[in-house]
Formats: sequence, C-alpha cells, structure tokens
Amino acid sequence: MRELGRAAREAARALARADRATKDRALEAIARAIRARRDELLEANRADLEQARRAGHDAAFLDRLALGESGIEQMAAGLEAVAALEDPVGRLSERRRGPSGIEVARMRVPLGVIAIVYESRPNVTADAAGLCLKAGNACILRGGAEALASNRAIAACVQDGLAEAGLPQTAVQMVATADRAAVGELARLREYVDVLVPRGGKALIARLAEEARVPMLKHLEGVCHVYVDDRADLDMALRIVDNAKTQRYGTCNTMETLLVAEGVAARFLPAIGEIFRAKGVEMRACARARAYLPDARPATERDYATEWLAPVVSIRVVDGLAEAMAHIAEYGSQHTDAIVTEDRARAERFLREVDSSSVLWNASTRFADGYEYGLGAEIGISTDRLHARGPVGLEGLTTQKYVVFGHGEVRR
Amino acid sequence: MRELGRAAREAARALARADRATKDRALEAIARAIRARRDELLEANRADLEQARRAGHDAAFLDRLALGESGIEQMAAGLEAVAALEDPVGRLSERRRGPSGIEVARMRVPLGVIAIVYESRPNVTADAAGLCLKAGNACILRGGAEALASNRAIAACVQDGLAEAGLPQTAVQMVATADRAAVGELARLREYVDVLVPRGGKALIARLAEEARVPMLKHLEGVCHVYVDDRADLDMALRIVDNAKTQRYGTCNTMETLLVAEGVAARFLPAIGEIFRAKGVEMRACARARAYLPDARPATERDYATEWLAPVVSIRVVDGLAEAMAHIAEYGSQHTDAIVTEDRARAERFLREVDSSSVLWNASTRFADGYEYGLGAEIGISTDRLHARGPVGLEGLTTQKYVVFGHGEVRR
Repeated sequence: MRELGRAAREAARALARADRATKDRALEAIARAIRARRDELLEANRADLEQARRAGHDAAFLDRLALGESGIEQMAAGLEAVAALEDPVGRLSERRRGPSGIEVARMRVPLGVIAIVYESRPNVTADAAGLCLKAGNACILRGGAEALASNRAIAACVQDGLAEAGLPQTAVQMVATADRAAVGELARLREYVDVLVPRGGKALIARLAEEARVPMLKHLEGVCHVYVDDRADLDMALRIVDNAKTQRYGTCNTMETLLVAEGVAARFLPAIGEIFRAKGVEMRACARARAYLPDARPATERDYATEWLAPVVSIRVVDGLAEAMAHIAEYGSQHTDAIVTEDRARAERFLREVDSSSVLWNASTRFADGYEYGLGAEIGISTDRLHARGPVGLEGLTTQKYVVFGHGEVRR
Repeated sequence: MRELGRAAREAARALARADRATKDRALEAIARAIRARRDELLEANRADLEQARRAGHDAAFLDRLALGESGIEQMAAGLEAVAALEDPVGRLSERRRGPSGIEVARMRVPLGVIAIVYESRPNVTADAAGLCLKAGNACILRGGAEALASNRAIAACVQDGLAEAGLPQTAVQMVATADRAAVGELARLREYVDVLVPRGGKALIARLAEEARVPMLKHLEGVCHVYVDDRADLDMALRIVDNAKTQRYGTCNTMETLLVAEGVAARFLPAIGEIFRAKGVEMRACARARAYLPDARPATERDYATEWLAPVVSIRVVDGLAEAMAHIAEYGSQHTDAIVTEDRARAERFLREVDSSSVLWNASTRFADGYEYGLGAEIGISTDRLHARGPVGLEGLTTQKYVVFGHGEVRR
C-alpha cells in the first residue's frame, strides 16, 4: 500500500502541472475506450452479477452492481461532461494589495492524492477517476470486492486514456485486493493520502471515521426534514412533500420526517395522507398527527432519528417554526432540510439558523445535488464542516494557496 | 471534558444566531476589562514568571510567557481591531440559478466549537477567544500549565465581557487543569469539537496529529526557502534574503535555506556572506557555495531539512529554476517559499508549481502573515491542504452551507 501511495504522490506532482488540454484529452480518450470496450465491460459485469447472485445478495444490491448498456453510456457521457467543465486549477481570486505594497492573491491548486473507498457501484470507478483527474489530483480507488471484475475492466479503459494523453498511469490506481485490511491501511496513510472520500452506506463510513488518520470528506446519513409552516401555500407544500418523499426512496436527500405546523395540520395532513396511502408509504406519526391520520402507527423517538431509505415516513405536528427547528437540531443529521412558507422573515430565519449542509425554502429536498446546484458534477455530499459542506464538485477537490507578487518589498 | 464539550456545543448555537453588534459589544467589553484589570493581570503574570524561573526555564521561554504593559495593551487593541472587522457570518456568495429554476447560494456560517491548544504565550487566550467569538464560534482553550495564573486572569476578563453583552459565558471556556491527558481527551472529542487548532512547537503539534480524532488546522514547521535566480536584480535579492533570514530568527516564515543559481553565485554569495558574517549568522553551505564562502561549514542532508529558528542558514548552489524547485519539493515543509527574479515566465512557473501554502515573487518570506496579507487578524498559519492553507483569518474560522430559494420547484 505504501508503494501505491508513493507512486500516487509522484503522479500528483505531474498532474498538478498538467494543463487543461492534456487533462481533457485524457478524459475524452477514457470515454472513447469505455464505448469501444462496451462488450468487455458488459461481460465482466455479468461475471460479477453472477457471482453476487450465487452469494445470495438481494435485488437492491444487484441493481447497484449492474452496469447495463445505459450505465456504460452514462459513464462515457459523464467523462465528456467533466472535460467540458472549466479547469479550476491555477485560477486566481481575492487579489488585493497588502499594507506594505505587496499584491496578494489566492491560487486554486489540486488537493494532491485522493483515496476513494466505495461499495458495489462500479460506475464510481469512472466518475471518481474523471473528477479527480480534471481537478489535477492523483487518486487511489478501492471499490467493493463484489465489483472487482467490472472495476478492473473500467480501470483498463482509464489506463488507456491516461497513456493516450501522455499522463502517468499511476495517476489513477486501483487497490486490486479483496482484503478488507487494505482499506484500513489506506485510511492511515497520512504521508501519501491527502483526503479520503468514502462513498457507501452508513456502516462503511462510520467504520472509516473511526479508523482514519487522514482527513475525510464524508456524510454519515441523511435524516432530512420538510417543515410545512402555517403560512405555507398548501398546494405547493403538497407537491414538495410528495416529491421529497416519493420521487426516490433510497437517496440521501429524500425526506425522512415531515413536520407540520399545528395551524394547518387539520387541512394538510388528510391531503398528504391520501397521497402517501396511494403510493404505499407507511406513516409513523405523533399523537397530534394521528388525529388526522388514523391509520398511521405511533412514531417513536427512534423513528425520528431514522434514515428510512424506504417508503416509510415519520410525521410530527409542531407548534410552529421554533419547535420545528428544535426538532431538526435534535434528530436531524445536518444534511438537507426545507421549509415551505410564504413568510419571508420566517424563511430567512430557517435558512440562517438550521445548521445543515443544504437548507431550502419552497423547494424539494431532492434538489440537494451537485448537478441540480449547477456544479456540473459531484463526488459526493459532505455533512462535514471543514473544507466542503454540501454537494462537492470540482472546486471541493482543490484547495487555495497564497501567491504574492512583490516589487522587492521587505518586512519592517 | 465531555461536560465542557456539551456546554460549548450549546453556546455555539447561541453564538451562531448572535448578530454583529452583540459580538462586537462583547469584544469591546473584554478589551475594557483587560485595560481596567491591568494590575491584576501583571501580578498574575509575575507569579507565573517567578515559578517558571524557579523551574529553570530559559530566557526565550520566559520572554514568551511575559505579558508586560505593552502586551496587555496589545491584547486590548487586538480585540478592538477584531471588532472593527466585517462579520463573515451570514454572507451570501456564488448566487446562481440551477437548471430547474431554483436559486442557489452559499452562506457563511460558523464552524461550531473550536478547541485551541497552545503553549506558554498567555496573549493567545485573548487573541484566540476574540477571533472565535467574532466568527460566531464557541471555543475551548487549553494554554500551557506554566501560564495558568495569567490565563485565568485573562479568562476572567473574557467572562466579564461576554456577560456584559448578554452572551453565554460558556462561549469561551478554559481547561483549567494542568493534566496533560486532558489535551488528548479534547483531541478525541469528535461529538463536541469541530476543529482543533494547535499553536506551539513542533513536538506539541506532532503529538496532537497522532492523537487527534477531530479535524485539525495546523502547521508542523516552516523550512522556508528563497531562490535567487540568475535573472534576479541582485541588489533586490540581497535586501530580500537579508530580511527573510535576519529580521527575526524565531518565526515560522523565516528563511532557513538559501538557494542560489550557479550563474550568479560568484557575484551574490560573497555579498550575502558579508552581511551574514556581520550579523553573526552561521552558514552551512554545499561544496559549490563554499568556493565563495570559505568560512562556511559543509552542509549536510539533515541541515537542508532543518528549521533553524536561529541565526543559522543552509546555503546551496543550484543549476537553475528546476533544481531549486526539486530541492524545495524534497526538503521543504510546504510553508513559505520565495523566488527573486526579473523573469516573469520563471516567476509564474515557480508560483504555480511550488506546492507551499505561500509562494512569493520578489518579496521576503516574512510577509507570510495574516496582517501583512490584509486579513486583519490571524489564528495561525496552516500548511494543511483541506479547508485553509496559509494564514488563517476570520474566514478560515467559518464554513459555507448551501441555501436554496425556490418557488415551489420539485425534482423531475
């Protein structure tokens, strides 16, 4: 693992110097290789799927593991989209004159070596490699053992593309062993790994947070809320709450708990209950809410802290804004929370005081996403506070150093 | 320690909501209290100094520990200067429209709870508390055992100021025990500490980097270089090199190694040698340099990696820019490095490719400093890559979350 790290560190130096044209050439060459080797990729993926099926993995797991023709095309198109993005590296900002006459600015530079640990989705191999490459970083990828054949086939395309552009092939390295201890070792490689990005379930991330001695960009879970204020447009609230819960059940920005102001509970809850019932969403509600939702199960303390990732929703009636914010502070995971209201002052208070990585006013929590925010790409969503908070795009994979333009100044 | 953490977390919520006027009132009240209690502070400091002297600490240590009347006035004036700075909290930036019509922006918010571990300088108690407070953070301070009486006296002023402004007194807490294990415990308090800022010598920081389970903002050491190019204005180079080495010997941005291009070695080295000799700076030079500096000791590999913090300088002749940058990459500490040249292309290459937190062109390394960069204040200098790199001011003590202004949008 140290050998891998040393090689990555060296490759990172070359990548930091690479200009945009070279990096884009590599990205486009990788995309071409992926399309050209479609049949190989499908076959490797079929082998992984076959083995996972025999090992007794469930349908959701197999679904995450499957590439399919559209998945392959998505990887290639994704790489081309990243090539089309502006290169953040070398950009100067905040130029100012210091008191002594020196000119000071900040310059965007790559982070260095990024380790990415992920689970069953093999497309992450291409997506993560592409983003790291564009931002001038070397990366070390460690995918799930069950996707090993698929990941190897994708990595071969990445290697081809790097070679075609004249970039070191060690710019993207795969940890090819299925040995779990390798991940722990990677997470402690302070000398060679600048940041660790885990992408996967809560168990993986919690374990890495315990083991890691390198900085991480991560989110543990998304217990997301929508608060329907008593000054909400209730038709809008119905659309937003429905979308936040039911557009996709398994994503981290899906609403898990609905908070409704007492003043509109009698009008709002029966209407949203009807939608949830029709879509087969199980409701777990507080006593006040159950007055309007007789078929809901009583909600427990534990339900409020649960990321369902399933057609289940916790529902609670609150007195108003203050109680809603107190509930979010107590049970939320600082991921994504929304308010629906026509009252600007209340919305602004919610936006400012709710301490989550994304806070929305009159929009679905499902928008908390790099593409929807216009970042052009996303390596993940961070609920950390340092460095990057919320969806992390290319800029989050860079840092800023200070550069000084002097004219012979010395310090007095 | 957990009790302290819990109280800090609660105070952080109140501070995050506090407006600028309230925070500035507290800062000004603390400054007033420090001036009003000058005699008490001096007396507490005298007791610390007396005990340190008896314990056999050296003059440099006692110098760092001593407050003096001017030190007290500096603390008070520093707090007033922080009060005069813009409040970063709540500021919106990067406002844009997402593809779906939602408006997206980033809002600056406090980091939360900041733990600061420092050594003998008691003024850090006031300086760090003031910066954390202005950026809306609660802080937990752990100063050196030898400064305990001074720190307690300063903390009492801070408590008065917080009370006067109606802010929770738990916004600034001191770890009052001299027990070393307390620091380790603080560094592992992931639930309550958002970032740990160590201020002190290399040993303290190295130990904390090993023990910490919370993110850190730190720099380990400053092995800083000045490279005198063969296209340098040699008069300017003399001024800059002299200043970078001799203006102060003990600071982290002091030059420790001088690199000189072969082409100007014969003209430059005798002249700078004369200055160093006159100021009593010991020279350790490579074989090529010793041809022009016969009185210099031969430099070892180890000398090149040493942060002297003393009137000692390593000197090496290099073929040119590429070898200078390779030397810096191998022996440097990614802190601060400078080039002196009249050649813009070479300077730009140096600025871009040298991977340090500050890179300067035709200016002394001694400028790597929050005040000199116009940040208005500084909690320290980071050579980390994540979050903040270089001098860290108020902005580095905040983070950015995403806020979304919608009009009822839902995700398709």
